[in-house]
Amino acid sequence: MKTVRDTIKVTSTGGRPTFHTVTDQVKDIVRKSGVKSGICVVFSRHTTCAVMIDEDSFDKAYTGLTYLQQDLADVFEKIIPTCRKEGQYMHPGPELTVYAAKHGEDKPGTLNTDAHLRSSIMGRSESIPIIDGNMELGEFGHIYFVDFDHTRARDRQVTVQIIGE
Amino acid sequence: MKTVRDTIKVTSTGGRPTFHTVTDQVKDIVRKSGVKSGICVVFSRHTTCAVMIDEDSFDKAYTGLTYLQQDLADVFEKIIPTCRKEGQYMHPGPELTVYAAKHGEDKPGTLNTDAHLRSSIMGRSESIPIIDGNMELGEFGHIYFVDFDHTRARDRQVTVQIIGE
Amino acid sequence: MKTVRDTIKVTSTGGRPTFHTVTDQVKDIVRKSGVKSGICVVFSRHTTCAVMIDEDSFDKAYTGLTYLQQDLADVFEKIIPTCRKEGQYMHPGPELTVYAAKHGEDKPGTLNTDAHLRSSIMGRSESIPIIDGNMELGEFGHIYFVDFDHTRARDRQVTVQIIGE
Repeated sequence: MKTVRDTIKVTSTGGRPTFHTVTDQVKDIVRKSGVKSGICVVFSRHTTCAVMIDEDSFDKAYTGLTYLQQDLADVFEKIIPTCRKEGQYMHPGPELTVYAAKHGEDKPGTLNTDAHLRSSIMGRSESIPIIDGNMELGEFGHIYFVDFDHTRARDRQVTVQIIGE
Repeated sequence: MKTVRDTIKVTSTGGRPTFHTVTDQVKDIVRKSGVKSGICVVFSRHTTCAVMIDEDSFDKAYTGLTYLQQDLADVFEKIIPTCRKEGQYMHPGPELTVYAAKHGEDKPGTLNTDAHLRSSIMGRSESIPIIDGNMELGEFGHIYFVDFDHTRARDRQVTVQIIGE
Repeated sequence: MKTVRDTIKVTSTGGRPTFHTVTDQVKDIVRKSGVKSGICVVFSRHTTCAVMIDEDSFDKAYTGLTYLQQDLADVFEKIIPTCRKEGQYMHPGPELTVYAAKHGEDKPGTLNTDAHLRSSIMGRSESIPIIDGNMELGEFGHIYFVDFDHTRARDRQVTVQIIGE
């Protein structure tokens, strides 16, 4: 039994939710790990991002998202609209704005309330069984890292932690 | 430390979301595994399905769902309405329709956009601690495999992966 | 490779969703476990509660919730309104009410349908990679145990299960 860890680096576009297909990279990490039976946790350390599994939708919208990704963005736009200005949500408040400034984030960069909320509801990770050396994704499953933060392009890390034998 | 894997087979009804209670079967797999301390991942390899834990609601609606299952279906009907025809959502698009046909799926069978979206939000799995040989489900917890795909009856597999000692 | 388990006890307020910050307690359990590389599952055995990761929002609303917690409560109030009386949702039905009474729960205490539904959508746990002895929470990540049950104050247990080496 062993643990193997790796990190995938991606950069979001800003301006809209960004979906990164990380299926092949995670498959590669699983193969190199040599683990035949276990669990692969694909995890976001960022509180405005999420990890999800879905099929490839092939057709692409003008936004660059696949139709299914755009449909998901549209659902969230309806229930948790994109934060366009302060006061739309309670967050960001005055103390958060001071704290963010101390950490190098300007006021527009704190208008990602929707991203925090969407990420909370989506969940921070997926735990995928590894069976006979392969992830149990079925014929059509892809792993997506989603950055819901629309405020600007950001460098992100996807953590992959494998445990098994 | 060891890993133990098993599969539970279920068949959905079509026509509405299907909830399969798999609690007893998963308990059986945990008991047979001999694992006393660890984690049990109950996972859906299907991208229109989800795994959830909830209490039994006992009363049943005319649809066959328990009241709580029906309430969950009603919430999703409000925020992600059942896909009844092409164009209601962006997915399925023309390329997806061709791809699906090549994989034996006709046009009505691709009208499961709502199921993909609901499944993404629910999450693909639950990771349940195993303590003293029993899953930590509390007094009232049941494990449900949910198939949100309403387009037709489908055979499904629930993957159970146990890791522990 | 080993497993380590611990429990954190919290008490909700009733009257609104309660958010318990358990970050420091979980960090403590991870440190004491001695596990350097593995996975930490933070899990709710209660079917009206959830575990989530988010940043600290600092500013507090009159309710006692941080702005971001209040925003999340507001989103759920919109899509899954607080259950105020029987008949608002299908659950609780007559059989559930009899069952609940046998388990010491009075009628007002069964009006937590919204909490079951919110909990199902949020998910019951978070699986957090442990790397070099620390949880992969990033600079701003906090772990929250959320009790959505508004009907009364309740004693709750947060299960922490660590697996690794």
